[in-house]
Amino acid sequence: MDTQVTAETAARAAKAESQYLRNCWYAAALSREIPTEDLFSRKLLDTNVLFYRKADGTPVAMQDRCPHRFLPLSLGTRQGDQVVCKYHALRFDCDGQCTHNPHGKGLIPSAARVRSYPLLEKYGFVWIWMSDRPADPSLLPDFSPLNEAPATSLAHTYMPMKAHYELIVDNVMDLSHIDHVHGEIITTRGQLTPLIPPVKESNNTVNARWEWKQTPPMMILANFLPDPQAEARMFFDITWSAPANIQLDVGAIQGDGRLDLKDSVGQYDLHTCTPASKDETHYFFATRRNHIVDDGAFNEMKIKLMHEAFVTEDGPIIEAVHQEMGTSDFFALNPVLLSNDVAPVRVRRLLARLIAEEQRSA
Amino acid sequence: MDTQVTAETAARAAKAESQYLRNCWYAAALSREIPTEDLFSRKLLDTNVLFYRKADGTPVAMQDRCPHRFLPLSLGTRQGDQVVCKYHALRFDCDGQCTHNPHGKGLIPSAARVRSYPLLEKYGFVWIWMSDRPADPSLLPDFSPLNEAPATSLAHTYMPMKAHYELIVDNVMDLSHIDHVHGEIITTRGQLTPLIPPVKESNNTVNARWEWKQTPPMMILANFLPDPQAEARMFFDITWSAPANIQLDVGAIQGDGRLDLKDSVGQYDLHTCTPASKDETHYFFATRRNHIVDDGAFNEMKIKLMHEAFVTEDGPIIEAVHQEMGTSDFFALNPVLLSNDVAPVRVRRLLARLIAEEQRSA
Amino acid sequence: MDTQVTAETAARAAKAESQYLRNCWYAAALSREIPTEDLFSRKLLDTNVLFYRKADGTPVAMQDRCPHRFLPLSLGTRQGDQVVCKYHALRFDCDGQCTHNPHGKGLIPSAARVRSYPLLEKYGFVWIWMSDRPADPSLLPDFSPLNEAPATSLAHTYMPMKAHYELIVDNVMDLSHIDHVHGEIITTRGQLTPLIPPVKESNNTVNARWEWKQTPPMMILANFLPDPQAEARMFFDITWSAPANIQLDVGAIQGDGRLDLKDSVGQYDLHTCTPASKDETHYFFATRRNHIVDDGAFNEMKIKLMHEAFVTEDGPIIEAVHQEMGTSDFFALNPVLLSNDVAPVRVRRLLARLIAEEQRSA
Repeated sequence: MDTQVTAETAARAAKAESQYLRNCWYAAALSREIPTEDLFSRKLLDTNVLFYRKADGTPVAMQDRCPHRFLPLSLGTRQGDQVVCKYHALRFDCDGQCTHNPHGKGLIPSAARVRSYPLLEKYGFVWIWMSDRPADPSLLPDFSPLNEAPATSLAHTYMPMKAHYELIVDNVMDLSHIDHVHGEIITTRGQLTPLIPPVKESNNTVNARWEWKQTPPMMILANFLPDPQAEARMFFDITWSAPANIQLDVGAIQGDGRLDLKDSVGQYDLHTCTPASKDETHYFFATRRNHIVDDGAFNEMKIKLMHEAFVTEDGPIIEAVHQEMGTSDFFALNPVLLSNDVAPVRVRRLLARLIAEEQRSA
Repeated sequence: MDTQVTAETAARAAKAESQYLRNCWYAAALSREIPTEDLFSRKLLDTNVLFYRKADGTPVAMQDRCPHRFLPLSLGTRQGDQVVCKYHALRFDCDGQCTHNPHGKGLIPSAARVRSYPLLEKYGFVWIWMSDRPADPSLLPDFSPLNEAPATSLAHTYMPMKAHYELIVDNVMDLSHIDHVHGEIITTRGQLTPLIPPVKESNNTVNARWEWKQTPPMMILANFLPDPQAEARMFFDITWSAPANIQLDVGAIQGDGRLDLKDSVGQYDLHTCTPASKDETHYFFATRRNHIVDDGAFNEMKIKLMHEAFVTEDGPIIEAVHQEMGTSDFFALNPVLLSNDVAPVRVRRLLARLIAEEQRSA
Repeated sequence: MDTQVTAETAARAAKAESQYLRNCWYAAALSREIPTEDLFSRKLLDTNVLFYRKADGTPVAMQDRCPHRFLPLSLGTRQGDQVVCKYHALRFDCDGQCTHNPHGKGLIPSAARVRSYPLLEKYGFVWIWMSDRPADPSLLPDFSPLNEAPATSLAHTYMPMKAHYELIVDNVMDLSHIDHVHGEIITTRGQLTPLIPPVKESNNTVNARWEWKQTPPMMILANFLPDPQAEARMFFDITWSAPANIQLDVGAIQGDGRLDLKDSVGQYDLHTCTPASKDETHYFFATRRNHIVDDGAFNEMKIKLMHEAFVTEDGPIIEAVHQEMGTSDFFALNPVLLSNDVAPVRVRRLLARLIAEEQRSA
């Protein structure tokens, strides 16, 4: 209630807002979102970015702002692999270089270039590099299981959320929330909450793992077990990597066998978040299952149900937290931390350290 | 038009915004708004507050924010007299103390408590104490006439307004506005404006009184006088008390008798305002009449008409003033004060003094 | 991306925001917008202004804010040539002087006056003077051709835009945009873009002129030429004057004759802009054609088409630029300037110089 504290909090939050990790790959879009003929615009890290595909299918990205009069280039038109601004017809190639100025003598000022962004297209996503340093493809984590599967076992979805991206990461890193937030299709029946998951941290990852028994098993897996109504052993194994990727394995097994995706009925998931701004996040999800991998109808139904669960069950809670917080500075609000916060708090601290290191070396 | 002046005005307004009087009771809700089974949330003095009733009917209030992950508790569920957070199932008792943590070993951190607020339920309202100092029930003014009446003579209503609460207080403290703003049902036929009401001020109250004659009398009273079309003597007697209560007596009489509610046909009203923020106010109204006190149908019709008058006649004017002012710092705009402003200006100055004293002694 | 730079940019923009040129005439409204019986309110230069007409038809303007309690006077009523505040019935004459206070003894405080604004009604517009210095009618540029024409050859329209007014001025001062933005009715078929228009600057005007050939000619003129499908010589001649007027001649001719409105088929236009705030502009347009001047049906159809072109073709582009810029400080964004920017940049610099001079001498 103190004015000065509020002002300081506001200042701190405003500063935090621009402190994105830069030397890393963010998921910009699902591959299927980038059109082959048209232009596509998305705000990423407070910047509007234009995307399209060249004739050969390669996606390209550049700032969605003409350097002349600042019209978003996405309001313009394609000309082959180039883009023409709607306002004064400046033309830019895929690297953002102006290649044609129809005005006057047609001289092209050396500053007439748009910032372009390196992209990687992998795992069903288009990943973007928004740093001033050279793009380093080795910094994109390996999610290769998403590449090596029949299409009927793989699904991707996109969910815009009105919340800070770290709140979404918190939510996934603390899977105990499933006990309380989610309905039948992915219910964990209260079994995760009493567990204190072992957490392992590396230089740039945080891993947590839950193992438990549940009767009946999680609905999305139960029908593929010998006895859908009987107890199963289950596991979650999740690994965060910068900036906001969480790779998640979940599986169930009845009888002997190991709690991994080789022996269990389960799936390999990727949750990945990209801030649009401090108040809006692009939340992406991909999943590959290891059972009835050729059933396209089941595949379609299941991603629809999971998308619905995230949007109607996690979404309102995360957005309500964001609104109630009124700041992105989580620790400034003195949260009461519990055993289920170990993994998300490790992630918050590691990310903060990576951002601080990056800014020191800038 | 000067930038610097605007900046100063903005800074002053921002400061004023957090300067609520704290050591006092605010009307939080009508008694009937607080549910017996469900949870109820309302923003008061910039803070979201959760309300519900215990099994024995006692209302309770606490900050509507889980201290763990900041989800509004109002999104959770009741468990007996306690409330369970929807996000991670922390449970809190009526005092805001965490009583159950299902996570890990179930230890309850000492900080796991929600700020609770003392309440008083009186006069058809639930009153809240939002200060750090101990609640002092003696600071709730005496509106006991609202307690001692048949239900068919009593009515309460609630009107959210997009305006600073002091503008609503100004409006009631200067009843000359009725001459100009209100239609037939409570018209004063221009008789108040020429009057300069005597104003009496105590340490923490401001009283004003108008006496006049009117033909025909105010419509809501006229039909209960001997001759509804003939002249009547009338009076208003209003008393402001901190923070934003205005108790109002209004009556009409034909023939002999005193201008008070014993001799006159009239009603005992309470207007009370609670800021949600500097731009939004909860405006509450209660009224008890001293005639046909058993007529429930009339009672219902009358409160509906009065509610309509406040919402459609006062509301747009007060909200337009709020918007045109663009600040809550009334005196900074150098208002031209008239004789009808004596009472509201005394209230503004007394309230400012009470706030300043409270902050000095904090 | 740097926080400090952003803060400085914001501060600079905030300062620029209040830096309107003051000693000049702004178009406040089309003449037909100011009612004879009612009250009319419009925000101009961040100030709400009340307009109405006296019984003799003369328009008057004053701040739309009662000096007593700050209700917009436009919510009040007319009383002859005066206006009565809805809240407490203070009455003001056309000069903003309070002439009646019904409260108490009726004394009128000397401060009880509203700031009134000098107006000029000319050329189908009501022009307002919003400076503290005495109004100087000689500073309204001469647009007398708009006065000397049959009504069936003259048309005016009004378009509110969500953009900074200088972006609209930029758009008109660089007519090369017609090649790219506009559809058939005013198309220039790509002929303007290669031209570098000669630009002439005086103390307070900037003139530019384009001459070109086009086949077929611009649709709004073609049908009045000997051969609507054949090549025509065409010209644009535009003159900016402070604060945001652009007078534009456009014409087409086949065969001999000069490129002016005496010899050519063409029209005399006026574009004029008035900021409501830094984010909203009142955009006015008037046009007088020199052919089939008695055809009222054509006149009506043509202004409707031109209005549509401005609203659906220029509007979205200018508003998208405004939003993408996020500031009104154009040069702070380091635009890449081209040959087509010569005229608009001269205007921006001249206007900035006029504002700076005015503020120095204040």
